[in-house]
Amino acid sequence: MADEAGVDLGELPDAIGYVLRRVQLAIFDDFIRSLASVDLRPSQFSALVVIDRNPGLKQTQVSEALGIKRANFVALVDELEQRGLARRRQVHGDRRSYALELTEAGQACLRAARALQAKHERRIAARLGPGGREALFKFLQALLGR
Amino acid sequence: MADEAGVDLGELPDAIGYVLRRVQLAIFDDFIRSLASVDLRPSQFSALVVIDRNPGLKQTQVSEALGIKRANFVALVDELEQRGLARRRQVHGDRRSYALELTEAGQACLRAARALQAKHERRIAARLGPGGREALFKFLQALLGR
Repeated sequence: MADEAGVDLGELPDAIGYVLRRVQLAIFDDFIRSLASVDLRPSQFSALVVIDRNPGLKQTQVSEALGIKRANFVALVDELEQRGLARRRQVHGDRRSYALELTEAGQACLRAARALQAKHERRIAARLGPGGREALFKFLQALLGR
Repeated sequence: MADEAGVDLGELPDAIGYVLRRVQLAIFDDFIRSLASVDLRPSQFSALVVIDRNPGLKQTQVSEALGIKRANFVALVDELEQRGLARRRQVHGDRRSYALELTEAGQACLRAARALQAKHERRIAARLGPGGREALFKFLQALLGR
């Protein structure tokens, strides 16, 4: 099977992992364009959502919940902190742990981001047709062995 | 919606992009474990397949076909070259371009990798039930707007 430029991709277009990755990258590109006015990448948006829902959660708990590697997540929080969207608080009695919370600016940013994300989501889901979103989620859960 | 550790993930588990990313990471983890004996990550496997199918293709053409950023792909080819699996050849009349080809060791590695990948693929696809793989691919193509 050849792509648009005539390159033979062999068995790759039949491999579930390869196709998932290409589609995920395309959806993330769309997400980034859709949230350009608030300048948030998917991982930053996810972090803001989880911090908002679980104020005071430790940095390591947030990174584990999101499946983001610790080092990458530290850099991500650094950036959110520099932008004034989130802050770290020392955990009482545990010098090495940091609890995370949103600033007021972070809450406002997340409010705007959520509206844009919901619009992006509706547009993407519409491509799947009636009932398609639910059917897709069933398959994705099955891939996780659930 | 809360995850196993009791962390509230808010709207994320309902977001197509978020779920695609989590599933893609899980499948890639399985791929890496499945191909541990040949020590190939998904992107390295993909590169070997495309170089094998299109010997002499330029480095930039391979990276574009695979949707891998140029800088990342240069590092990937460096590694394949250091391991003796692929080599760059100067393109005649074009000093800045490199054509890629597999070495004999690269061909042997890819043969072993393909057998392992096929086994991984069958195991993953079995989770989707009869006809599930085809239905999933239809939805994934739809997400790409095709």
